[in-house]
Amino acid sequence: MMGEECGIFGIYGHKNAAELTYLGLYSLQHRGQESAGIVSGDGKTLRQHKGLGLVADVFSDPSTVKGLTGHLAVGHNRYSTTGSTLSVNVQPLLVNCKDGPLAIAHNGNLVNSAQLRRRMEQEGSLFQTTMDSEIIVHLVAKSQKPTELERIIEALGQVRGAYSVLLATRNEIIGARDPRGFRPFCLGKLGDAWIVTSESCALDIVGAHYVRDVEPGEVVVINKDGLRSIKPFESSKYSFCIFEYIYLSRPDSRIFGDNVDKTRRRLGRHLAIEHPAEADIVIAVPDSSNTAALGYSETSGLKFELGLIRNHYIGRTFIEPSQKIRELMVRIKFNPVSGVLKGKRVVVVEDSIVRGTTLRNLTRLIRQAGASEVHVRVSCPPLRFPCFYGIDFQTSRELIASSHTVEEIRKHLDVDTLGYLSLEGLLEATPGDGLNYCTACFEGNYSIRPEEDVSKLSLEKETAISI
Amino acid sequence: MMGEECGIFGIYGHKNAAELTYLGLYSLQHRGQESAGIVSGDGKTLRQHKGLGLVADVFSDPSTVKGLTGHLAVGHNRYSTTGSTLSVNVQPLLVNCKDGPLAIAHNGNLVNSAQLRRRMEQEGSLFQTTMDSEIIVHLVAKSQKPTELERIIEALGQVRGAYSVLLATRNEIIGARDPRGFRPFCLGKLGDAWIVTSESCALDIVGAHYVRDVEPGEVVVINKDGLRSIKPFESSKYSFCIFEYIYLSRPDSRIFGDNVDKTRRRLGRHLAIEHPAEADIVIAVPDSSNTAALGYSETSGLKFELGLIRNHYIGRTFIEPSQKIRELMVRIKFNPVSGVLKGKRVVVVEDSIVRGTTLRNLTRLIRQAGASEVHVRVSCPPLRFPCFYGIDFQTSRELIASSHTVEEIRKHLDVDTLGYLSLEGLLEATPGDGLNYCTACFEGNYSIRPEEDVSKLSLEKETAISI
Amino acid sequence: MMGEECGIFGIYGHKNAAELTYLGLYSLQHRGQESAGIVSGDGKTLRQHKGLGLVADVFSDPSTVKGLTGHLAVGHNRYSTTGSTLSVNVQPLLVNCKDGPLAIAHNGNLVNSAQLRRRMEQEGSLFQTTMDSEIIVHLVAKSQKPTELERIIEALGQVRGAYSVLLATRNEIIGARDPRGFRPFCLGKLGDAWIVTSESCALDIVGAHYVRDVEPGEVVVINKDGLRSIKPFESSKYSFCIFEYIYLSRPDSRIFGDNVDKTRRRLGRHLAIEHPAEADIVIAVPDSSNTAALGYSETSGLKFELGLIRNHYIGRTFIEPSQKIRELMVRIKFNPVSGVLKGKRVVVVEDSIVRGTTLRNLTRLIRQAGASEVHVRVSCPPLRFPCFYGIDFQTSRELIASSHTVEEIRKHLDVDTLGYLSLEGLLEATPGDGLNYCTACFEGNYSIRPEEDVSKLSLEKETAISI
Amino acid sequence: MMGEECGIFGIYGHKNAAELTYLGLYSLQHRGQESAGIVSGDGKTLRQHKGLGLVADVFSDPSTVKGLTGHLAVGHNRYSTTGSTLSVNVQPLLVNCKDGPLAIAHNGNLVNSAQLRRRMEQEGSLFQTTMDSEIIVHLVAKSQKPTELERIIEALGQVRGAYSVLLATRNEIIGARDPRGFRPFCLGKLGDAWIVTSESCALDIVGAHYVRDVEPGEVVVINKDGLRSIKPFESSKYSFCIFEYIYLSRPDSRIFGDNVDKTRRRLGRHLAIEHPAEADIVIAVPDSSNTAALGYSETSGLKFELGLIRNHYIGRTFIEPSQKIRELMVRIKFNPVSGVLKGKRVVVVEDSIVRGTTLRNLTRLIRQAGASEVHVRVSCPPLRFPCFYGIDFQTSRELIASSHTVEEIRKHLDVDTLGYLSLEGLLEATPGDGLNYCTACFEGNYSIRPEEDVSKLSLEKETAISI
Repeated sequence: MMGEECGIFGIYGHKNAAELTYLGLYSLQHRGQESAGIVSGDGKTLRQHKGLGLVADVFSDPSTVKGLTGHLAVGHNRYSTTGSTLSVNVQPLLVNCKDGPLAIAHNGNLVNSAQLRRRMEQEGSLFQTTMDSEIIVHLVAKSQKPTELERIIEALGQVRGAYSVLLATRNEIIGARDPRGFRPFCLGKLGDAWIVTSESCALDIVGAHYVRDVEPGEVVVINKDGLRSIKPFESSKYSFCIFEYIYLSRPDSRIFGDNVDKTRRRLGRHLAIEHPAEADIVIAVPDSSNTAALGYSETSGLKFELGLIRNHYIGRTFIEPSQKIRELMVRIKFNPVSGVLKGKRVVVVEDSIVRGTTLRNLTRLIRQAGASEVHVRVSCPPLRFPCFYGIDFQTSRELIASSHTVEEIRKHLDVDTLGYLSLEGLLEATPGDGLNYCTACFEGNYSIRPEEDVSKLSLEKETAISI
Repeated sequence: MMGEECGIFGIYGHKNAAELTYLGLYSLQHRGQESAGIVSGDGKTLRQHKGLGLVADVFSDPSTVKGLTGHLAVGHNRYSTTGSTLSVNVQPLLVNCKDGPLAIAHNGNLVNSAQLRRRMEQEGSLFQTTMDSEIIVHLVAKSQKPTELERIIEALGQVRGAYSVLLATRNEIIGARDPRGFRPFCLGKLGDAWIVTSESCALDIVGAHYVRDVEPGEVVVINKDGLRSIKPFESSKYSFCIFEYIYLSRPDSRIFGDNVDKTRRRLGRHLAIEHPAEADIVIAVPDSSNTAALGYSETSGLKFELGLIRNHYIGRTFIEPSQKIRELMVRIKFNPVSGVLKGKRVVVVEDSIVRGTTLRNLTRLIRQAGASEVHVRVSCPPLRFPCFYGIDFQTSRELIASSHTVEEIRKHLDVDTLGYLSLEGLLEATPGDGLNYCTACFEGNYSIRPEEDVSKLSLEKETAISI
Repeated sequence: MMGEECGIFGIYGHKNAAELTYLGLYSLQHRGQESAGIVSGDGKTLRQHKGLGLVADVFSDPSTVKGLTGHLAVGHNRYSTTGSTLSVNVQPLLVNCKDGPLAIAHNGNLVNSAQLRRRMEQEGSLFQTTMDSEIIVHLVAKSQKPTELERIIEALGQVRGAYSVLLATRNEIIGARDPRGFRPFCLGKLGDAWIVTSESCALDIVGAHYVRDVEPGEVVVINKDGLRSIKPFESSKYSFCIFEYIYLSRPDSRIFGDNVDKTRRRLGRHLAIEHPAEADIVIAVPDSSNTAALGYSETSGLKFELGLIRNHYIGRTFIEPSQKIRELMVRIKFNPVSGVLKGKRVVVVEDSIVRGTTLRNLTRLIRQAGASEVHVRVSCPPLRFPCFYGIDFQTSRELIASSHTVEEIRKHLDVDTLGYLSLEGLLEATPGDGLNYCTACFEGNYSIRPEEDVSKLSLEKETAISI
Repeated sequence: MMGEECGIFGIYGHKNAAELTYLGLYSLQHRGQESAGIVSGDGKTLRQHKGLGLVADVFSDPSTVKGLTGHLAVGHNRYSTTGSTLSVNVQPLLVNCKDGPLAIAHNGNLVNSAQLRRRMEQEGSLFQTTMDSEIIVHLVAKSQKPTELERIIEALGQVRGAYSVLLATRNEIIGARDPRGFRPFCLGKLGDAWIVTSESCALDIVGAHYVRDVEPGEVVVINKDGLRSIKPFESSKYSFCIFEYIYLSRPDSRIFGDNVDKTRRRLGRHLAIEHPAEADIVIAVPDSSNTAALGYSETSGLKFELGLIRNHYIGRTFIEPSQKIRELMVRIKFNPVSGVLKGKRVVVVEDSIVRGTTLRNLTRLIRQAGASEVHVRVSCPPLRFPCFYGIDFQTSRELIASSHTVEEIRKHLDVDTLGYLSLEGLLEATPGDGLNYCTACFEGNYSIRPEEDVSKLSLEKETAISI
């Protein structure tokens, strides 16, 4: 099943609902570049427009956003995983069931979707996508509860795993966050309009103010009567995704009640304390590691430098180059600044290492640009376990640290020293007492176990391929 | 619900299954220009490609057809109705249910789809399109019969109306035609491969030979064991759509067991006997009325002339012209040949009159080109009743003959005389004893009544709009 | 150099000049499908939009035609030759010279363009296209005559060959036809607006009336003072392209002062007298041979039938099919109607034979559809010599009749009999006394010899390739 | 006339010449995003592909680069000026003159192109674009010198202004830089292949090494005999564009013989000395001011922070938003990080101020994000005079500093303090003794005066508009 890193945005009570959603999706583009979509509603019907590509591409024709009339809207950005990009899998998903039209936009990953799907298929349901969100609306459609809201709550009560989810009917939008609160989800207000979205940066862009987070296990129903909060689920220990602080969220966002920027800075500071380096300068792998690198620089006293220039004009279609050319093309994304690096002992701060392939190429470029020593510092512990709750490393095989020691990874990267932030350091640097975070990718201590073999699922995923 | 004029093509047992389907869809393009799609299967999975536009447009990138590997394929062309072109409504529809992937391509129109949909929605099904074909696969998915084939048969047993339908699983294709046989459906062979398609012209284009029609009420199952015929439904009186002979099918096809060309010619002959004209020449509204006009010419002895040139280079996007320009643009499609028409008393043969708007403009052009008299002859009786079985006039309002006498229509067209072929003449001209045809559009004698108000349905159709 | 079959349309004095030009180009689409373009002027500036593809494709965005404001416009359709489609070669060509902007649209082919180009290159001119029209505007730019009109006339005085040409400045449009009048060119009026265009069918479509032909050697200058006719060139014997009557022009056009339809009909009549056939039916290769086939039918008394259905939905991009599929694909364009052909002795009327490849495939299909005998009748004499004046067979190698006898061609086509209309028959059937036509493609009697080796030219043509 | 900020790349002697040019253009994308093009040559012919958009867009189809065969290539990126994007103005420009095909790619701006064009138009030349590069090839074409190289040199001897230009014939590439050396231009080697390009970052990306700069006034001829250097022009005082160091070039490039990064850092240092601030943190307007801000931070001792996040996913097509939405949309490009800015006295380092509009919006956002004070520091002196040599501020009206004092600008920006780097500081910070730079945009001391009114030219520019 598929869920993964995504950005969602919903608004109720504004005459430019779709336009604001469009802006919100723009600011959440870092959470997903594979596809984008908006469903709007005017009380009578729901309208949708969605497609593969960036927000700017999918909505490049100005008339499309204008055509999405109505006072409520939900939107979705999807993460670009390699390989199977299914056009049927673009969200929001708009379906019709006994109550009429229903749209859903989901961020997260369910761990029992395969069982639910299999059960419902046995009972006669048919599926047109491979998305978790289709599971949820099927459960809603099948529920025999008397009201649509009760049906939605019953549906959510059956899914297990991570979800920050938005639903839209003709007359209201409903936001819900799983009881452990894996993924961020916050509430904002713009005049009388309510907004529910993944990160607070999407509130900023539309000029809305942050009100509070949607709480873990909370369901918010927003309609003409305003916002109503329901807590239908038993409370659980929280499992905030700590990787949001490390990498995924934008530094200007506030998530899980705290500033990303400040936390990410502290990661760099702790890293400097744990893994100092005899070096001349500190550089970041731009842009995601910039903030941690600044923290490292501050605490270590080593000068922060811009040693890598990132090319932001990279398109999505490349020539199939000859072998020689292919090697040259790794340089397109990052260009080392020789004037900065030459003859220097360089600390390279990276937020995390998955496979290590890109970082290996990058450190080689840094050396070729004249660095005399390369010291890699990683602002989180080794990633050793797959994530089942929405981050895109779903098997151990993808994770170099699942099968290699730190020293082996250092050799693989061919760098002078390698230091990872410790789990203790990570938890100290993040807000709170460290009890509320999911750290399963480092420790394997899954708060909710997936109920069956995930590899088997990924095969099923390929059953229906839309070219 | 939507079904309507479409072309379908399925093949089993050829290594170029998708390529041949592509060719077949080309030859069925006259049955639908709104969208096209192909699903192919290789025993393990089903792959699809589909989109809005002509076959040539949807498959303009050569790699798409090549990517549809496998030994079986089903394809679909859809008719372009005005207005709501829903991208979710492109067929074949590919879904997953308990047996795995299932694809469906449907030509025809069900009369109880609204009830079935409502019932299944109440039972917890959700719908993502407004197509009849989705109804059918939902019924398959919900069936508790032990085998997939039995589930398909049970599903088809519940739908009422017109269907020539193709289903594809990983390992076989299944063709089924409703017990009344409204829409044409024929079987062909190309080497060892079996083909099931709407018209025999699609067999010709791939070099296959016509074997026989799929019989009304017959289900054909084609897999590695060859073709197996099943007759699971009670036999009914046949209701072949007589409009296929009048207008829809290609003249080079063989449908309902007979040549379209020959029958269409006889329509013209009978028309000449019933409605002779004191005239100099006979012209057709090209291209669909050419054959009937030739028949009229033969029997009347009046010279057949090419008085109207049709412009085949008309694209699908037009400028929004000023009022003056708009009037000029009716001339883009047909250009009268003054040299042929000047000073002549002209018989214009038209296959049928729906609204009469185009014909009115056309006869005015013919007069302006110098015709001294214009005599319209229509090769079918007045269309007075909507069709519920797949032809695109679904309400009486669209039909000028539902509210106007022939004399009133003549005045509206502003022509000298107007003659419609009589129902008797029509039935005499068509093969067989006339008992096997559906003539409901002329007589209102629906063999299967739609079970509820259609106008109500068409409102629901708009519930989910995909821009 | 390149000129060839094209359609041109110019209008002065209408506030919707570009929109009417767009309509005019629609009706001239048969003269060229490779590219289309319009230049409009409002007295101050010239604006252009052009591109590769059909008129409907190039102007698919409604805003483009609307953006072409002004009271004058010239437009151009270009013929699609195989192979090198150069985007720089799209007309009209818009340049700036000392008088300001100048646009040109050209139909025809010059025979001394290579020499002129070489001379001007030696003198310091540079060329950005391979079009004859660029030669002409270079000559205009280089002329030292005192007025722009005199410069245009001096330029035209230096080119030799076939041209019906339209020029537009900020304030006027100028039409000119070479002294031999190879290509058709006519004048029409729509209210106060003047129109100059290739065929009268373009006048019909905009509701204008035909005034007269632009005379061979005439230059018409149209501006706020109305139309002014100049005859600056010595008079020559006329050389009307007889192939316009045989094939190129639309039957509803009036060219060279006469109806195409009537003349083309007479070709069929004379063909029937010269080459009768013991046969049952007459069919045409649609659509271009329809009219001649009707003439053949009338005179021979053999019944005219629609034995071939032409598929008009063929796009321009095809899959690269396997060998087996490639053979099947010839059937996409024409489908034989077995019901018509089976067991019949069939006369197939074709307007002309160039290579004979398509006709050979077609006659094979006709036989496969059941024809017992196939008799090909061609409504012109054997094409034995290349055309240097604008028809697309520029070398003898392309012409089967340049190296094969009629009997050899019959064998190649594998048909029972083959008859070509004689030159005498052709000239008798065309209006006038036969003295005014160019028949060089049949006789080799070129009225204007190209001054150097054409094969050498075609190499140069490839010097600059725009992909 | 048009020239302006562009990136050029030429290579001779590599079998993947076009592929490497494609990579080079990628790394020069920051110099121009409006259009891209490549001309390749194989000794016999030149081939081209070009179009509007980014390199990745124009060459999105892999087959296009592959089709550009041959061992030599020249490529061009063009800057996106607002408004008139003429498709005819895409470079390289490929023409044919007496020597055969000739391609040209130009970076810079000529000051006597209007006169040259007028003179040549009077002499009979015609122009199809509004580019300076067309002027140059016209001069080449008209030259009567005996060899092509001499003709090129004679042509360059007649143009005045800024040019770093690449020409390609069938057999060689020729690079030339104007005697004052306004624009950067450097030589590199990759194995036996020579490369000539705007910035050294394009050498890095293809793995070539920097050899030296093309010297001002130097012409380099590269063919099978290797590189030959010619100095045909009288030597002049150099006028290196100092704005390349301030803003235009990439920090990882080496231009005018020195590292951009190091120089730009020094600008920040000097700025800190000249304009210290009582503040808490230093932030940059990313990405172009990052390096200067680091320098400011180092010298001032104020902490460097990432206070603005730049959104790199912004597409080129926007919705036409309602007024309210338009205001919100300024936030799309830059998002302030409240956690960094809140309660802080902030120094904002910007590389330069043209109109001041964006900066004004940005400082307002910074204040809204909680900054208690905003101090703007600009790493160059006030821009008061237009640039005639290739930077995109061509009239005084565009420059706020041409009509406002620093204090007025401070008020306009609504910031607490505003400090510009002094001219002396700028010259001290740049390599050399400061005598070699063009500082006309600050001082108005144009080394080469444009010979006529530029505003008149810009009107002519609009004469021929291609939509």
